[in-house]
Amino acid sequence: MASPVELAAQRMQQWAEQVRSGDVRAVSRAITAIENRQPDAEELLRRLFPSTGRAYLTGVTGAPGTGKSTLVDRLAAVYRQQEEPVGIIAVDPTSPFSGGAILGDRIRMQGHAGDAGIFIRSMATRGFLGGLARATAEVALLLDAAGKQQILIETVGVGQDEVDIVRLADCVLVVLVPGLGDDIQSMKAGLMEIGDIFVLNKADREGADRLEQQLLAMLSLVAPRDGWQPTVVRTVATEAKGIDALAETVTEFRKHFETSEERRHKRAEHWKQRLIEMLQAQLLERALDGAAGEKLLDELAADVANRKKDPFAAVGEILARSGLSGRSKHK
Amino acid sequence: MASPVELAAQRMQQWAEQVRSGDVRAVSRAITAIENRQPDAEELLRRLFPSTGRAYLTGVTGAPGTGKSTLVDRLAAVYRQQEEPVGIIAVDPTSPFSGGAILGDRIRMQGHAGDAGIFIRSMATRGFLGGLARATAEVALLLDAAGKQQILIETVGVGQDEVDIVRLADCVLVVLVPGLGDDIQSMKAGLMEIGDIFVLNKADREGADRLEQQLLAMLSLVAPRDGWQPTVVRTVATEAKGIDALAETVTEFRKHFETSEERRHKRAEHWKQRLIEMLQAQLLERALDGAAGEKLLDELAADVANRKKDPFAAVGEILARSGLSGRSKHK
Repeated sequence: MASPVELAAQRMQQWAEQVRSGDVRAVSRAITAIENRQPDAEELLRRLFPSTGRAYLTGVTGAPGTGKSTLVDRLAAVYRQQEEPVGIIAVDPTSPFSGGAILGDRIRMQGHAGDAGIFIRSMATRGFLGGLARATAEVALLLDAAGKQQILIETVGVGQDEVDIVRLADCVLVVLVPGLGDDIQSMKAGLMEIGDIFVLNKADREGADRLEQQLLAMLSLVAPRDGWQPTVVRTVATEAKGIDALAETVTEFRKHFETSEERRHKRAEHWKQRLIEMLQAQLLERALDGAAGEKLLDELAADVANRKKDPFAAVGEILARSGLSGRSKHK
Repeated sequence: MASPVELAAQRMQQWAEQVRSGDVRAVSRAITAIENRQPDAEELLRRLFPSTGRAYLTGVTGAPGTGKSTLVDRLAAVYRQQEEPVGIIAVDPTSPFSGGAILGDRIRMQGHAGDAGIFIRSMATRGFLGGLARATAEVALLLDAAGKQQILIETVGVGQDEVDIVRLADCVLVVLVPGLGDDIQSMKAGLMEIGDIFVLNKADREGADRLEQQLLAMLSLVAPRDGWQPTVVRTVATEAKGIDALAETVTEFRKHFETSEERRHKRAEHWKQRLIEMLQAQLLERALDGAAGEKLLDELAADVANRKKDPFAAVGEILARSGLSGRSKHK
């Protein structure tokens, strides 16, 4: 008879195989495990890791109201027509809700009802120890292992969080619409730097031509990266106009960077960032655990708030009690 | 004759005294030190810490184009009339620029030209090891020590980064304007939870009444916090209309929470978060330093990107080489 340890290993093996075969329930369960930071999530991802690295990740970002969701759905439909399995991760850092039960997911799924080749999941802000960017990256890894060749990551385009999320993508689409006001240029300034392709959505609206000219003028100031000059594609996502052209531009971009040094560099940079996050999470866990958990932290925080202690001294105390202070003795 | 160590301590003491006296150059130099994460910034903040905790921090957040900057300037003018020293920290996570030399700062300063009682500084995205929220919190601490009784922190209102920044404030103003479109409700959903006072700016525009009604309807669903029911104040910042009423509402809020348990709790929560960030930064520094710096990290990141190693194994390797792996031996 198998021991409990062997049984656990067997179950883990089975779970990994189910994910690799694209089993929706196994994938959903894994995402929940990732979101809740269950220990088995790490074990699963470890097993799945060798099966990853094949998916193409497209990030879609832009201000609220630019029609990102519709655009992503249309793009997914194009990929499904080409019989490529699609995964969609909709990240909303402003929403307090998360998990598979979001109403929006259900509504969106209806457009792809009965299609097993598409998987949609929303993710929202987690607790302060969470790290939305990390969870998103892990879910992308999972969908990659589950055979989704095209992974679309959609997120509201402001703030460091979103930049971190988008950094994970191979190709970044920045969505803009006419009529959001010139003040919004400040937002664009940040997005300008991360966009590979600029999607001028709702291009049938007044002001589209002017916006396109502004965009092209701004883009002409940006030095081409590795020979790629960011382009503008006009779409009307609600009417599925321009979506084929957009998909083609993404493919063009993909081919351009397939073998490029820049892509290799970007991937390594991404993993460097990820390793740092993982390191920090592990070290923090150890520091707090060794220091009798959050209790001491709570007491010290109250002391600092009352100016009984300075924060640097408080940190020193946690490190000292967890045995992590000072230089290490090992080589 | 004084030794080099004594001289350094004297210079540090002098710097701290200059900051406490509100010397603009000393404060500017300190902010640069904080932004660049110079070691002397920590030493300085340590010395200044006992002189902090007196300022009132007001966070001002909202989408681009809502007129936050103008509103903040007007509010600052009201405080200056009451002869309260003011510090303004304008945080723009989407801007690649930072530091005292931002054009916007200069333009804004002209409105308060010759007034030594006001200090304005912009802060933008730092490198990945930076932590904008932390830098902002440290600058707020510094301005607090420098005697700024009113500190206004202005930031674009989307994303976890901004939520972290705003969490630092004693009172949070959420700025909304009519006509930004209903899609933007999704943004509001996140902001709804953090707002203490809602500012309906550009209230002379069409749609202001409707927006106010929507806002009040949404707010009626929010349970009052510690007896405070979030309110709506109408302003036209460009014409300085409604600013006095806004300042009064902030004062009302301040009085309401002066002695409240919630405020004490919020302050402690803030410091808990800060201590965690400081812990993580220190532990990471140690882990990388002990592991022959970023070189190993770069190599491992490349290995992971090429699927030669899984990320969990890579992290284990860094921890092992830095002597930080496994359980601590101390109690």
